[in-house]
Amino acid sequence: MDFKLRILGSSSALPTSERFPTAQVVLYNNEPYLIDCAEGTQMQMRKYGVPFGKLKNIFISHLHGDHIYGIFGLLSSFNLLGRKQKLNIYAPAKLKDIYETVLNLNNDQLKYKINFVPLDNSGKIKIFENKHIQVFSFPLKHSKPVWGFLFEEKQKQLNIKKEAIEELNLSIKQIIAIKNGDDLIINNTVIPNNELTIPAAKPLSYAFCTDTLPIQNLNEHINGVDILYHEATFGSELAELASETMHSTAVQAAMIAKKVNANQLVIGHFSSRYKSMEKLIREAKEVFPNTIEAVDGLLIDISKTNC
Amino acid sequence: MDFKLRILGSSSALPTSERFPTAQVVLYNNEPYLIDCAEGTQMQMRKYGVPFGKLKNIFISHLHGDHIYGIFGLLSSFNLLGRKQKLNIYAPAKLKDIYETVLNLNNDQLKYKINFVPLDNSGKIKIFENKHIQVFSFPLKHSKPVWGFLFEEKQKQLNIKKEAIEELNLSIKQIIAIKNGDDLIINNTVIPNNELTIPAAKPLSYAFCTDTLPIQNLNEHINGVDILYHEATFGSELAELASETMHSTAVQAAMIAKKVNANQLVIGHFSSRYKSMEKLIREAKEVFPNTIEAVDGLLIDISKTNC
Repeated sequence: MDFKLRILGSSSALPTSERFPTAQVVLYNNEPYLIDCAEGTQMQMRKYGVPFGKLKNIFISHLHGDHIYGIFGLLSSFNLLGRKQKLNIYAPAKLKDIYETVLNLNNDQLKYKINFVPLDNSGKIKIFENKHIQVFSFPLKHSKPVWGFLFEEKQKQLNIKKEAIEELNLSIKQIIAIKNGDDLIINNTVIPNNELTIPAAKPLSYAFCTDTLPIQNLNEHINGVDILYHEATFGSELAELASETMHSTAVQAAMIAKKVNANQLVIGHFSSRYKSMEKLIREAKEVFPNTIEAVDGLLIDISKTNC
Repeated sequence: MDFKLRILGSSSALPTSERFPTAQVVLYNNEPYLIDCAEGTQMQMRKYGVPFGKLKNIFISHLHGDHIYGIFGLLSSFNLLGRKQKLNIYAPAKLKDIYETVLNLNNDQLKYKINFVPLDNSGKIKIFENKHIQVFSFPLKHSKPVWGFLFEEKQKQLNIKKEAIEELNLSIKQIIAIKNGDDLIINNTVIPNNELTIPAAKPLSYAFCTDTLPIQNLNEHINGVDILYHEATFGSELAELASETMHSTAVQAAMIAKKVNANQLVIGHFSSRYKSMEKLIREAKEVFPNTIEAVDGLLIDISKTNC
């Protein structure tokens, strides 16, 4: 399975000449799942070849402009492109009012349906699943209600040994049962499942956490996550400002990555005051060495992060 | 005087990987005047070094999303940048409802004042002037009320000959009178103004016309304009679609340029179906040879178009 993350915007509220505000795409088997939709998201999707027509699910973390002001253009563009397919939006309840008001004022009548799913802040909640992956929302802490998202592969089936199929002349029914963990009984002899199968690969996962203060119990929701994207708006010299504005520093993001036993940390949502992120990366790496910098256009192959 | 035009977006409704939707900046003595504000305008302003803090006047042609969806982010960014200076917006009346609704829903309280001036479609109307330039609006024809804008330098003062100042030992009062066209009277002798002065340079002008059907009486409003930007959404093969959607073809844009005796035509607002604009440019040039293609980032020195 192909599981990737494409960064579309890595700036905080003020865009810079190098960085657009927040948007990302999770690509699972080349199907895009959009996370946040800042101004310019549709242009970044075009620039980085995200398949427009395949987008069925949008996840919005919170209602600050730098995370949602691209939604109007994106919904309009789908209309112009003749979209008929339903679009699912998982977002804070008021987003529906916002885009409906704008589209109505602009007389932009959508010719496709939107299935709007308001987020619930009572805990970790499964909000989406298909055959391969599931997505959970969980509350973070900011000046507005905000949610993080966990994208998790489902437990994969056991891999049956090729030689077992051939030697034992297994039927399709038997193969399915073995892949699901059953032992095999032939002539009253039990062949244990572990002699017939190779363990399935560990399901991979990605967690998105912005905008937020560092949250100490995040391990309850995303423990062992493969890739953690965590905001790091400021360096340690502005820890006080981070606290006042309910954001995190690079060091705090790294401490969270350590606490949740992440494999890799990606920091982003950088304040426009920083021309280089060198200091922020250095500070994070001192706490959590496997840290990288989010950059617009960066493509991360999640399935290779354990290599 | 320095009079330039910077194209920020040259696509029609659907942005492409190369072209953002409509926005432009007129730069007069490095003061920016923004025309239209599509999604991504603030990023393009950053990219092309448009001085954010100096922007005092925004002109919006009409209320289609691909001309206004960048206004929310721009107004928010001014807030974040600590703007205190008043901002003038000249636009169709309903734009105020649109941005106020969005900013309110988003709890984005602006800390600076907006002087909102609704456009009037009764004819050519002066909507702005300062010491150096004046801006007129005039109605165009589209599926929504739409206005064009004419940026025109004011008639410049006569240039007084250096040798006249020295030989005649002129006072400041006399110099001002001569620059304003007065003759000089010394010892009851009249020295005619034209012996003392060099004619002032012709005032330069720029007209912006999108989205619109070709309008046959545009010469009443912009005759002799130096640079005409006119939309050319389609090539001649789609003349019928242009008419149905109330847009213009490249040939129609060129015919308008000819009719208004423009010096140069810039065509833009291209349909995303065109990968190259070669055909559109060729078609326009057959009618009006001095035609160029709008490209994102293009900087045109209006004061040099007569050279």
